[in-house]
Amino acid sequence: MISEKMKPMVNNNSVIRAMFEEGKAMAAEFGPENVYDFSLGNPNVPAPKEVKEAILETLEEEESTFVHGYMSNAGYEDVRETIAGSLNERFGTDFHLNNIIMVVGAASGMNIIFKTILNPGDEVIAFAPYFVEYNNYVKNYDGNIVVISPDTESFQPNLTEFESKITPKTKAVIINSPNNPSGVIYSDATLKKMAAILEAKQNEYGTDIILFSDEPYRELAYDGAEVPYVTKYYANTIVGYSYSKSLSLPGERIGYVVIPDEVTDSAEVITAATIANRILGSVNAPSLMQRVIKRCIEKGAQVDLAAYDRNRNLLYEGLTNLGYTCTKPEGAFYLFLKSPEPDEKAFSEHAKKYHLLVVPGSSFACPGYVRVAYCVSYEQIERALPAFEKLARDYQLIR
Amino acid sequence: MISEKMKPMVNNNSVIRAMFEEGKAMAAEFGPENVYDFSLGNPNVPAPKEVKEAILETLEEEESTFVHGYMSNAGYEDVRETIAGSLNERFGTDFHLNNIIMVVGAASGMNIIFKTILNPGDEVIAFAPYFVEYNNYVKNYDGNIVVISPDTESFQPNLTEFESKITPKTKAVIINSPNNPSGVIYSDATLKKMAAILEAKQNEYGTDIILFSDEPYRELAYDGAEVPYVTKYYANTIVGYSYSKSLSLPGERIGYVVIPDEVTDSAEVITAATIANRILGSVNAPSLMQRVIKRCIEKGAQVDLAAYDRNRNLLYEGLTNLGYTCTKPEGAFYLFLKSPEPDEKAFSEHAKKYHLLVVPGSSFACPGYVRVAYCVSYEQIERALPAFEKLARDYQLIR
Repeated sequence: MISEKMKPMVNNNSVIRAMFEEGKAMAAEFGPENVYDFSLGNPNVPAPKEVKEAILETLEEEESTFVHGYMSNAGYEDVRETIAGSLNERFGTDFHLNNIIMVVGAASGMNIIFKTILNPGDEVIAFAPYFVEYNNYVKNYDGNIVVISPDTESFQPNLTEFESKITPKTKAVIINSPNNPSGVIYSDATLKKMAAILEAKQNEYGTDIILFSDEPYRELAYDGAEVPYVTKYYANTIVGYSYSKSLSLPGERIGYVVIPDEVTDSAEVITAATIANRILGSVNAPSLMQRVIKRCIEKGAQVDLAAYDRNRNLLYEGLTNLGYTCTKPEGAFYLFLKSPEPDEKAFSEHAKKYHLLVVPGSSFACPGYVRVAYCVSYEQIERALPAFEKLARDYQLIR
Repeated sequence: MISEKMKPMVNNNSVIRAMFEEGKAMAAEFGPENVYDFSLGNPNVPAPKEVKEAILETLEEEESTFVHGYMSNAGYEDVRETIAGSLNERFGTDFHLNNIIMVVGAASGMNIIFKTILNPGDEVIAFAPYFVEYNNYVKNYDGNIVVISPDTESFQPNLTEFESKITPKTKAVIINSPNNPSGVIYSDATLKKMAAILEAKQNEYGTDIILFSDEPYRELAYDGAEVPYVTKYYANTIVGYSYSKSLSLPGERIGYVVIPDEVTDSAEVITAATIANRILGSVNAPSLMQRVIKRCIEKGAQVDLAAYDRNRNLLYEGLTNLGYTCTKPEGAFYLFLKSPEPDEKAFSEHAKKYHLLVVPGSSFACPGYVRVAYCVSYEQIERALPAFEKLARDYQLIR
């Protein structure tokens, strides 16, 4: 009954499902407080209070048929204008409402853009480590993903290999900064070099290459680190944004894409992306949440970043003191730990002995590492460190 | 920049956009109260009061990280269980929570199912008149739509032509009852015959053919008319449902699909559809609205059907008294009017002279008719009838 394309996914899915069931079974057997699940990117920090306020105000002050009704497939004009204005104020850009399309989260935004631009056989480049779900978004439109191997020194993108792998079939490049899973922020120098390479290759091949910047973690940057705004580096940039992390609303599926006027054929791209939003089935981003986003921007709502920062410091100090190796994350809420044995799947498996659940780096095209998601309670990290200690002893990281 | 598949859509879209802009321009020129826009299926009846109550209760009683967080890609278990229970109670079915997948509206549900089952070149049958957006959902997965011509006597599906057009490549059949645009409910007799034809053809070809029942208008049935539950007629039925009309929440994008155990390979189909929900970018249906749906079902919330019924009667009586021809709608909120001249596009164009906006039947694969959406205010219909009278005189329907 299943289509040929879906068959391998159904088979692979059962592996992930088995892992998920295992976590639940462990929690049932040992008690949830004795299982240290660092596998999921589901924020533990609640939505800021302004979200609830904004919902209540919207329901009080706006008409039901307006709040819950259809609007333009691209979203409410006033919401898009508020977002454009906020971006312009913060990043010195010059967007107007037509550059903004409200979408059902960043994943939907990426699907819409790939639907808009990909022909079968087109290549899309991603830099390891990256969220391998991107592979599915590209395959949905019969594109081929091209992976650039990781630079495990800096976790900045490997631009030498990048340059060598751009071909006349390269239609898009995905970047994700702050990065899931490494926590690294792509630097100003990186983006400048990347833009220069892309421009040279566009000229050489006479093609257009879209740089898709997937930015759900933009606001999760620590120690005052700046996250450069990518449209300012390269004209053919499209930004995908989600409020999943910045307002702790992952289940609500609310975000936007930015298609600047500087993108080649931008008017057609905007029209096509709006149609793609409709025909892929979203029709429009959830209406009440659109209204809420406008009010949250006006209120300056922001998730409690300090909570993630405390987690980050506790976990990073704790793990490095135990002899583990990792780059200190600059943003997002993941820590990418070097596996003490080459086969990180075996390491993840062994960690379960101490009720520690972490995700093997092969799920991010970066074997040899594991992802530890610290969007959990501070107390879970405190309770987990003795388990990480036992694990460290098994690998003789401490003696 | 645009993909080959999207190019024709961008060109066609500009025509629709021009129509939309024309309506706005007319409202600006003549005043919104003097323009009679019957073109949109955007409910004018507000969401029932239980929706707001349910939102407030959810925000008071449930944790922020739960209400706005990730859950299973198929949706919250308790919400799906409540829906399954409600269907079982009303229709004597035997669903459990795994048969229900929460989706981003019916359009997304249909995309997910077609992604799950269609191979390139597979055929999907639709009965005219139908919502031609279905064509795009089928084309998204490289399927081919096969249209059965309308029976303009009864607007029940033409089953003789249907039988002749089923081939070994037929993978799915779409029905939509109560129907957009005709307002007709497919009868028990129709569904029995359709099921018998499908079963015979499955046996003849050794294939599986999914009957996809698109049911956003299920609860909008007048005069106590019954809308048969399709899974009881044919084992390979999948139902797509949306709360867009029954709770006036079209902008919220909340609905579900039902994949019964009786569907061939149902466990795999459920798994694949859940994956498709994730990888097409929805990830999950909007979380707060899922919580709200559960409470609304428990509260027995229902949109004010009487308001639509009043509109239906006023419009139907008014138009038939003026000499127009149409079948009285049994459900939904559309009336499908026979164009007084063969070219219904010319008729729609002429109607604009009196500030009447109606949709040509060619948008529903049924030329010669126009769709009049009566999900508007009663007052708009009252104000519009004199305009319909002038139009009737031009066609000498009345003298």
